Amino acid sequence: MAKRSGEFEVISRYFAPLARDVSGSFDLSDDAAVFTPSAGHEVVVTADALVAGVHFLADDPPGQIAAKLLRVNLSDLAAMGAAPLGYVVTAAWPAQLDDDWIGAFAAGLAADQAVFGIGLLGGDTVATPGPLTLSLTALGQVPVGTALRRGGAESGDFVFVSGTIGDAGAGLALARDQAGTGADAAAAQFLLDRYRLPQPRLALGQLLRGVATACIDVSDGLLADLGHLVEASAVAAEVAFDSVPLSPACRQVSDPQAAMTAGDDYELLFTVPPAAVEAVPLLARRAGVPVSRIGRITAGSGVAVRRADGSAVDFATTGYRHF
Amino acid sequence: MAKRSGEFEVISRYFAPLARDVSGSFDLSDDAAVFTPSAGHEVVVTADALVAGVHFLADDPPGQIAAKLLRVNLSDLAAMGAAPLGYVVTAAWPAQLDDDWIGAFAAGLAADQAVFGIGLLGGDTVATPGPLTLSLTALGQVPVGTALRRGGAESGDFVFVSGTIGDAGAGLALARDQAGTGADAAAAQFLLDRYRLPQPRLALGQLLRGVATACIDVSDGLLADLGHLVEASAVAAEVAFDSVPLSPACRQVSDPQAAMTAGDDYELLFTVPPAAVEAVPLLARRAGVPVSRIGRITAGSGVAVRRADGSAVDFATTGYRHF
Repeated sequence: MAKRSGEFEVISRYFAPLARDVSGSFDLSDDAAVFTPSAGHEVVVTADALVAGVHFLADDPPGQIAAKLLRVNLSDLAAMGAAPLGYVVTAAWPAQLDDDWIGAFAAGLAADQAVFGIGLLGGDTVATPGPLTLSLTALGQVPVGTALRRGGAESGDFVFVSGTIGDAGAGLALARDQAGTGADAAAAQFLLDRYRLPQPRLALGQLLRGVATACIDVSDGLLADLGHLVEASAVAAEVAFDSVPLSPACRQVSDPQAAMTAGDDYELLFTVPPAAVEAVPLLARRAGVPVSRIGRITAGSGVAVRRADGSAVDFATTGYRHF
Repeated sequence: MAKRSGEFEVISRYFAPLARDVSGSFDLSDDAAVFTPSAGHEVVVTADALVAGVHFLADDPPGQIAAKLLRVNLSDLAAMGAAPLGYVVTAAWPAQLDDDWIGAFAAGLAADQAVFGIGLLGGDTVATPGPLTLSLTALGQVPVGTALRRGGAESGDFVFVSGTIGDAGAGLALARDQAGTGADAAAAQFLLDRYRLPQPRLALGQLLRGVATACIDVSDGLLADLGHLVEASAVAAEVAFDSVPLSPACRQVSDPQAAMTAGDDYELLFTVPPAAVEAVPLLARRAGVPVSRIGRITAGSGVAVRRADGSAVDFATTGYRHF
């Protein structure tokens, strides 16, 4: 049987190195960690849980699972305009995951710590008779009073979204049935990557502080998350059907309706008042991510999607429902 | 079949009320929460996970599970000398837990929020095909540079512990086999309560800032945790066997060796230099918890337990090993 160390060894061998240069983590050797936000900043905190067989496939590569766990949380920080500071992680491991698996999972976290300039502050590892269950709490900071919220959109604001929409949903379909989609090899690889490795838009989120009136990340689906945004803002939105950005790969395998209701894109969806609209392309270039104007905020409630001729596009469902 | 609502309804009905008066929680309606530590303070963060069938019994009352989840984390804050600020929680629910169960779990959190003066900042709820798996991240604060650590004990310091030791271990034995222990009804109830409802020593921990040279909470067992403390401090400890505080109820069913190696007491174990020893009883009275002097820090390594005649007490095991 493959080697499986006890809790103390797992922490000291695989997780303490992730905290080694993190001030206040005490190399995971104390009861808790300590950190101080920068002067004039407040702390932003978010948590997400992932379960094998529900949010990822049990035989997905461990480093990829680690990256997804970290990045879905960093995407929430991005949607608040926050800069990441660090994270704590808890893991309930099934007995069949051996040291090699845990080492590869930790290596995935280490790689992303370097990408995002953050470190491990603490956590807990426990045994479970059930599926691998992971929980991560990400901590970030924003200058006091500048956090982006869902609830600030006003009638007349323009609606923007970063990147392309629907890729992750198409990638999930490919992961389940590669042959059935008819995508070419390059498109398939692109879509699978988009599903497996979210790209939290941290730079864009921080640049949008003071510019965007409302912001949310696209996790439930473009229309579902726009629905959350307009509900929190007590406004309505009209989306121009033809303006929603789809990648060429997504167009090979999916239609715009499906793309707009698929989840897990982790792009930023945000609103900008007319006076600030001209700044958006500049900010997008600085952030290194394309941004598309897809609609307008109006009075009322709900989200309508219209074709160029003004006719409404019907959707059977507005997004993935969790749970 | 009992009613089981979807994720959005579960959050809005049972968890959003826990965040209602919490500044920066945005009623759980945003991507993340925002909080600001007091001026001159730093943030203390800790996380623990609990799994049904591993850390609690699946048929334990939901409110009791909620309290244990919160309190084991608050105990870690207490051991750092921190005042609690708030928490985030993630829950992976099996399908058979219905709305009533989730409501009782949330009510347990609500009751303890009132006890400890804290609120819910955020979290995530997901489905699992496995056992109920809970993860909680507690956030607290200390004045900058005053956090209690495990690693500060020095030769000559005295060793103290709060409360009584071994009760939780005896309570766990009772929970497993009530008849086999021979405890009277009152003792059994006391021990079961001590096992089920940890009492994080938050007031004592905060009063020990600037007084204790090292501190840890007793979760693995008195000797195991003292071992962690002396290892982190690069010192040794001698414990006077007769001075370890056992409750009358614990004495009915357990011996001191078993008490000193049982886990889950969540008392504070700390060291104090000779010059500050006289302050400890006063601080204990102010905190409302008894404190006992049980030993001394010496040069060297490891933990020795001695009887009044100087002979060493042998222990087959020094504490509960996780995992």
